[in-house]
Amino acid sequence: MTTLKNDTLLRALLKQPVDYTPIWLMRQAGRYLAEYNATRARAGDFLALCKTPDFATEVTLQPLARFPLDAAILFSDILTIPDAMGLGLYFSQGEGPMFKHPLRGEKEILALTAPDPADKLRYVLDAVSQIRKALDNCVPLIGFSGSPFTLACYMVEGRGGTEFREIKTMLYQRPELLHHILDVNAQAVTAYLNAQIESGAQVAMIFDTWGGALSHSAYQEFSLHYIQQILSGLKREHDGQRIPSIVFTKGGGLWLEAIAASGCDAVGLDWTIDIGEARRRVGDKVALQGNLDPSVLFASPDVITAEVEKILSSFGNGSGHVFNLGHGISQFTPPENAAVLVEAVHNISRKFHMTSS
Amino acid sequence: MTTLKNDTLLRALLKQPVDYTPIWLMRQAGRYLAEYNATRARAGDFLALCKTPDFATEVTLQPLARFPLDAAILFSDILTIPDAMGLGLYFSQGEGPMFKHPLRGEKEILALTAPDPADKLRYVLDAVSQIRKALDNCVPLIGFSGSPFTLACYMVEGRGGTEFREIKTMLYQRPELLHHILDVNAQAVTAYLNAQIESGAQVAMIFDTWGGALSHSAYQEFSLHYIQQILSGLKREHDGQRIPSIVFTKGGGLWLEAIAASGCDAVGLDWTIDIGEARRRVGDKVALQGNLDPSVLFASPDVITAEVEKILSSFGNGSGHVFNLGHGISQFTPPENAAVLVEAVHNISRKFHMTSS
Repeated sequence: MTTLKNDTLLRALLKQPVDYTPIWLMRQAGRYLAEYNATRARAGDFLALCKTPDFATEVTLQPLARFPLDAAILFSDILTIPDAMGLGLYFSQGEGPMFKHPLRGEKEILALTAPDPADKLRYVLDAVSQIRKALDNCVPLIGFSGSPFTLACYMVEGRGGTEFREIKTMLYQRPELLHHILDVNAQAVTAYLNAQIESGAQVAMIFDTWGGALSHSAYQEFSLHYIQQILSGLKREHDGQRIPSIVFTKGGGLWLEAIAASGCDAVGLDWTIDIGEARRRVGDKVALQGNLDPSVLFASPDVITAEVEKILSSFGNGSGHVFNLGHGISQFTPPENAAVLVEAVHNISRKFHMTSS
Repeated sequence: MTTLKNDTLLRALLKQPVDYTPIWLMRQAGRYLAEYNATRARAGDFLALCKTPDFATEVTLQPLARFPLDAAILFSDILTIPDAMGLGLYFSQGEGPMFKHPLRGEKEILALTAPDPADKLRYVLDAVSQIRKALDNCVPLIGFSGSPFTLACYMVEGRGGTEFREIKTMLYQRPELLHHILDVNAQAVTAYLNAQIESGAQVAMIFDTWGGALSHSAYQEFSLHYIQQILSGLKREHDGQRIPSIVFTKGGGLWLEAIAASGCDAVGLDWTIDIGEARRRVGDKVALQGNLDPSVLFASPDVITAEVEKILSSFGNGSGHVFNLGHGISQFTPPENAAVLVEAVHNISRKFHMTSS
């Protein structure tokens, strides 16, 4: 069992007393940092960055050198699993991630199998081990995966940012085919996250980026059900430490109660919901992570500080809150504004933890 | 005072007894219809279609010739107001609507004034009168406008489909400038909708396409507040008839109670909320419009019918429901599936109105 120098994130995720509200930022290692762009240029492209543990380690640590963040998150892509399944991930300039072989034919779908992470995703596990060493237990490392439905969107559409015509046609017309893909994805994600945990990831986060595009009932059946399946198969302890899990469905504010009952330790919130209202709705069941609109970071320090105070006040006293943005940090964010944010959260939040520490 | 042959829509919006649940489709006059594409080709382009009352009338009536819909909706664009303000609306191939002169400088913003609809938007009012004549009172005509915030998104960004960087920077950094734009927009929309009502529109709908991109508190302050301002200035009666109003904020499911309290008669729902849950939340305050996922229309007749039954059952007995999609109909919809939808709603819904008629 290792002892972290700063375990505030883990404590907050488990609703244990903390001195201040911990913060990390979705996509904290990213294009808004000049040093990230420099490493990416050296690597050649985004995929080389993900697939080379040395580079992945370097960029994972960059934001921690700038800001006193309370966690590192593995630098990787949510589409490593379908890539390992042989769908041929590539990045087209200005188009985002795409697959050479979208998954639409019944024969290909039924032949789909979960990749062995120790084989095809070795580079991710190596990155996790190497990052853990480099972190030297200063803060915990978050491992992650895309949700089965979010992966399926890219796998069936062949790309992101669509109107989901292909996958929703499948969902309504051939639900059994989509269920097969989702079941294989859930097995793959479970094995992948467990392998990350064994390699040293101290938190497991599931990004359900596209679940919010579904109807109320389709969300339960085609997204949340498979997230539950993963959570029930996830290692809850490793190296003598409890491994908390976080589920983030963007646009999932209407379904918080169901997400909170899925078996996760924390629910990620986008910025459309008031966090105090979210806390009232889920009660003491889970911790909450979020939920500043990333656009606030385009404004001045006094505006950023005021918006931080609003969220912290709305959540109120006590543990169970991990501060974050409601979505990934924009590439257009001035890095000095990220510094203002982290400092504001650390300073202002202390008064909300006076009785609990 | 005129007597409509089919006033089911008006009765449902006012929660008066009906024999069946009325239905119309957002973007029902559109690219999924071959006859629409033919008229558009004759007109030359989309803007010419909007700006020529003969063409606008022709395409408005096309879906009614195919399907027994319970309403017509004025064929127009949500961006006619900023176009009339001089921002220079144009359509770029594959890019959607854009403005030649996005509104960002303080001087231009403070000089912004609401256009007189009788002057700059005469072509819309002429289309409304002409459509009313052509409809010959068979079904009511819905007039509409974009919401002040949605118009402002396009005006400030210069285009749709962005990540709202410009307008959100203004919102957080120079809120007084955005409030000025929104106030002028609210005045403009009020005058525009009242002019449509005087020209013959029998329902007024406000499309808040982008309000759902805001945080909880920003939505109240920068979108809903100005919708309320419009509603409080809207003519509630014309030609001896009550003019019902509908407010639709896409992605607004978390804020239904507030929208229902805005002074509108009906609230539009996208497909992410269960309509029965929405009815429980807003109580008897307003009617509800929605909320089938447009993607269901890619599936087969039996699937469409089953999904219609789900929504009708979830809403339950009694009046106060206008069936619609949760967003505009896709250009890829087979028209015969729209026919299946309309028939299913008309047939299946009768059993939910047995006691109320």
